[in-house]
Amino acid sequence: MGSPIKSKKNCTVEFQPLGRRIEVPFETTIAQAAQSAGVPLAADCGGKGKCGKCRVHILAGGAAPPAASELKVLEQSSAAPQERLACMTRILGDVKIHVPKTSMVHEQSLQLEGRMRRPEGDRLVQSRFVKLPPPNLQDQRSDSRRLAEAMDAWDENGWTLSPEFVRRLSGVLREFNGELTVFLQDDAPIGLAAGKKTPIGAAFDLGTTTIAGRLVDLESGEILCSEGCMNPQISYGEDVISRLDYAIHNPDGPGRLSAAAKDAINDLLSALCKNAGVEPERVSNLSVACNTAMSHLLLKLPASPLARSPYAAGFSNPLELTGKAFGIKDAPTAKVYVFPCIEGFVGGDHTAMILACGLDQADETCLGVDIGTNTEIVLTRPGADGGMFVTSCASGPALEGAHVRDGMRASPGAIHKVRITENGPEIFTINNEPPVGICGSGLVDALAEMVRAGVLDSRGHFTYEAKGVHKSPRGKYYLLATKEKDQAKQDIIITQKDISELQLAKGAIHAGVQKLLQQMGISAKEISQVYMAGAFGSHLNMESALAIRLLPEDLADAEFVQAGNAAADGACLALLSRRERSRAEKIARKAVHVEMANDSSFSSVLVKAMRF
Amino acid sequence: MGSPIKSKKNCTVEFQPLGRRIEVPFETTIAQAAQSAGVPLAADCGGKGKCGKCRVHILAGGAAPPAASELKVLEQSSAAPQERLACMTRILGDVKIHVPKTSMVHEQSLQLEGRMRRPEGDRLVQSRFVKLPPPNLQDQRSDSRRLAEAMDAWDENGWTLSPEFVRRLSGVLREFNGELTVFLQDDAPIGLAAGKKTPIGAAFDLGTTTIAGRLVDLESGEILCSEGCMNPQISYGEDVISRLDYAIHNPDGPGRLSAAAKDAINDLLSALCKNAGVEPERVSNLSVACNTAMSHLLLKLPASPLARSPYAAGFSNPLELTGKAFGIKDAPTAKVYVFPCIEGFVGGDHTAMILACGLDQADETCLGVDIGTNTEIVLTRPGADGGMFVTSCASGPALEGAHVRDGMRASPGAIHKVRITENGPEIFTINNEPPVGICGSGLVDALAEMVRAGVLDSRGHFTYEAKGVHKSPRGKYYLLATKEKDQAKQDIIITQKDISELQLAKGAIHAGVQKLLQQMGISAKEISQVYMAGAFGSHLNMESALAIRLLPEDLADAEFVQAGNAAADGACLALLSRRERSRAEKIARKAVHVEMANDSSFSSVLVKAMRF
Ligand code: FES
Ligand code: FES
Repeated sequence: MGSPIKSKKNCTVEFQPLGRRIEVPFETTIAQAAQSAGVPLAADCGGKGKCGKCRVHILAGGAAPPAASELKVLEQSSAAPQERLACMTRILGDVKIHVPKTSMVHEQSLQLEGRMRRPEGDRLVQSRFVKLPPPNLQDQRSDSRRLAEAMDAWDENGWTLSPEFVRRLSGVLREFNGELTVFLQDDAPIGLAAGKKTPIGAAFDLGTTTIAGRLVDLESGEILCSEGCMNPQISYGEDVISRLDYAIHNPDGPGRLSAAAKDAINDLLSALCKNAGVEPERVSNLSVACNTAMSHLLLKLPASPLARSPYAAGFSNPLELTGKAFGIKDAPTAKVYVFPCIEGFVGGDHTAMILACGLDQADETCLGVDIGTNTEIVLTRPGADGGMFVTSCASGPALEGAHVRDGMRASPGAIHKVRITENGPEIFTINNEPPVGICGSGLVDALAEMVRAGVLDSRGHFTYEAKGVHKSPRGKYYLLATKEKDQAKQDIIITQKDISELQLAKGAIHAGVQKLLQQMGISAKEISQVYMAGAFGSHLNMESALAIRLLPEDLADAEFVQAGNAAADGACLALLSRRERSRAEKIARKAVHVEMANDSSFSSVLVKAMRF
Repeated sequence: MGSPIKSKKNCTVEFQPLGRRIEVPFETTIAQAAQSAGVPLAADCGGKGKCGKCRVHILAGGAAPPAASELKVLEQSSAAPQERLACMTRILGDVKIHVPKTSMVHEQSLQLEGRMRRPEGDRLVQSRFVKLPPPNLQDQRSDSRRLAEAMDAWDENGWTLSPEFVRRLSGVLREFNGELTVFLQDDAPIGLAAGKKTPIGAAFDLGTTTIAGRLVDLESGEILCSEGCMNPQISYGEDVISRLDYAIHNPDGPGRLSAAAKDAINDLLSALCKNAGVEPERVSNLSVACNTAMSHLLLKLPASPLARSPYAAGFSNPLELTGKAFGIKDAPTAKVYVFPCIEGFVGGDHTAMILACGLDQADETCLGVDIGTNTEIVLTRPGADGGMFVTSCASGPALEGAHVRDGMRASPGAIHKVRITENGPEIFTINNEPPVGICGSGLVDALAEMVRAGVLDSRGHFTYEAKGVHKSPRGKYYLLATKEKDQAKQDIIITQKDISELQLAKGAIHAGVQKLLQQMGISAKEISQVYMAGAFGSHLNMESALAIRLLPEDLADAEFVQAGNAAADGACLALLSRRERSRAEKIARKAVHVEMANDSSFSSVLVKAMRF
């Protein structure tokens, strides 16, 4: 290990959600592999197969079957069907493992928090506290009439209700002494809680890899708590294309993918309510922002039109459905709002990001970039000759640390900053823990430093004579951290293949930005602000990003804003105000989508953009 | 047989939906029993167990298990799980059997047709035909935007859609060359059909015993077809109280009862569409009118508040839900409207009946009576001192032919008219077939004649010396039809117990009417029109009804209107016009419910009302 040469007997182990990959000998236990890979797996019993704390989910690949003793512990710890004890499970082939948050010693840092702007004036949901007298033989009014009369809504323009609301009303009315709070949207009741309560909203950013959720008090606008989890659809494919394919080619594929996402959202909602100490019945509204593919898979919309040219999405109107129709177990009466997609692969999460950053109303020329496996880019300019152009490019997962030999997500032990001096590379890790891999911002930093130090030439080739460049039968590589110098669990290297993956990613983004500039007929110099959203964006060193030409060099004078999880911010805003929803819908109508696949000159632009 | 003396070895067989009961010897086949009872069961193979045409559903009770040969035929004829071949199944105890319509030689006459008034001006559902160009790389607009732009709805007040609508749109758009019709309600799309089509509505009158369904063309207002079926909830209890009890005392009771009704509605909708040659996708709207208990069981609303004093209903607002939420398989995007209940046991079917008969806008004092196991009564008076009073009374099923020894529903072979001359009784049957039992109107006629001829005294006791009165160890009875004289399959009699059941029924209705008159402070003489709704009402001889004091004698000068299935008419009206819905909702708000259980003097009123 530590050498890029793969022994025939070795197995590749990939740990999700950290995105950490490692090679270990055949029959290594998952717990040992996790330790080597720096995955902070719990082991309360010290790996004796007794505590049940090291439970992991085998997403794909080969492992020895469980012994009776393991099955017993799994049962006692009420493990899910595909879970195994990491300390007891021997690896028999390449394997992909999901480590649930509950099995980790310290928590991963998923991108949860944004820095939300205040919503516009109006409040979407109103609440009203009432005390209803119990029925008796002299007062046999129905439950709904009893409530409507108490709220002066027993008239011409009376309510039309859902059965779920009536069911809840009949329960609460009798169980809690008639004291209750009604939540109203557009003067119609959409929720109900016993006693005097404020309405709660739940906002979700359903990403290809992770799901971020937040609870918002819909009266105060306060964010009560944030939680994240992996998108369990990952077991059906890592990227959107493979998941769309799964949905297309398997009769039960759409159902499975949808159920996986909905189950995760349900679980996340339960966890959020528990953490915030909030009764789930108070959740009157949910909002979901997600990319085009995720929204189609979530809602079982036909996948093939999206997966095949001309890649037409099903909707760019907002969608609304009830909690019951969506399948929210704890809040059947709630209203679920799904952000409108823009066009093609530019989805509702981008709408939400533009909304949260206020790019639709900015008074300067702004660029917004949300880097992920798919990167969405928006360019806006105010005024009469203004406009809003959006595009998406398949930048691949390299900038998130995936498909890179020692790549990993931004979690403790990840190298996030690199300097190359005459003494060689100097590294900085998250939480200052011993290095276990490199996260996206570390990779950008490393590339920038390698270019500056002459380790890489402008086409991305290692220069032979440069210090730190080594050669193996599989190609050249740069030695970034070692066991000896850096207390790394294993040597950490960047291979020529890694460089190529990163070049493709940054080249695609660069080319996308250029395409939008060209469409608007302006130069990068005219851009005043650059919003970087997403987990990757928030740790990025902008100087390095410009140095490797991830973005055009002419942006050097622009103001960079780290927007955090702007899609989740946008999802919250849509829970708070009707005007924010209208803004989101206007963004989806107004934004002009620029299709890359449509441009014959694109490949030559891309080749240039890949240069350092 | 034919004698009221029950042999120990005999088994009672009850055939639904005809409501025909008969006693047969142990081990008789169901087919033989059906023949004796005059149930027109199909038997294409002549009862050899080969054609599979005589399939019946055993709802409860004992029968010998099927032989391998029977199982094979059942499988070949794709029988439902609990179905049996009547010709092969031997009866081993008291048994209740449902004969599906498809297994009958000629169709039962369920109460389906009404005489609907024309709806008020506006049209609830609009349709719009469009032809959409297919997407290509130069035109990647989403499906929903493509449609919205073609319909000039891509603006500020744009649509919010359901996932079901988008799913359908994406399908139709690609499968049918982009030619489609959109159905809109309140300017929002609620349905979609390939090609140029009119929207279709489906109206249901969900009764305790039967379900009537109709298809309506929502553009022309034309009724396309009508169908009826049994309410399969009958296997969980014959009357509303036993079904409510079942829901209260069985954890899965509410789910089962709801599913049974919804399955039947789904099946009825399929049959309606098939008969009318209409694609189910054209069904944009459904409406359901049902009594309070049925609506609560249909929608899984809490049953115990309704079943126990003070009998408060869950809702008197209208309910609306999507086809998906309701569970309409063929029309997930459709909107389902459920009529508002009034109060207590006066439910949405009564609202629909009042609407259909126009009693809310009548310019005379009107009485409306919908006779069933529960009878609902409404009294309305126009003008400043006017008002609308409603009540319901548990009249029991005797007037529908149930719980009466030789009672049956109004189907071929039922005695529906009786005259007693000095030669004894003279009978008339539906379709002039040999008599097999007595239906409700026949019972009323028979009672009136027996009173007139002095067979019964004013307290309902047989006068010993009267011709035709016989005596058995179980009590006295009147011999109405015989094998010899009338070619009856068996002697048809009316027992003292039957008389009591009928007295209770007519007494309850009479008392209910009196209570409403008293509440309004008027006498029966002031009533100008009497609307009789339901299956029973449409065959009734009004003179006989007044003669037995089913209704106050002072109504003799009123005009009687046979309103047919007015609840189903009302359900149709709610599909056609928004103003009709508003009227229905106003009825539910305006009607004043008068509770019988609340009145200490009621029992003495009832005792008097039971007299002849
Ligand atoms: S570490 Fe305790 S069971 Fe694995
Ligand atoms: S009559 Fe043919 S199978 Fe029974």
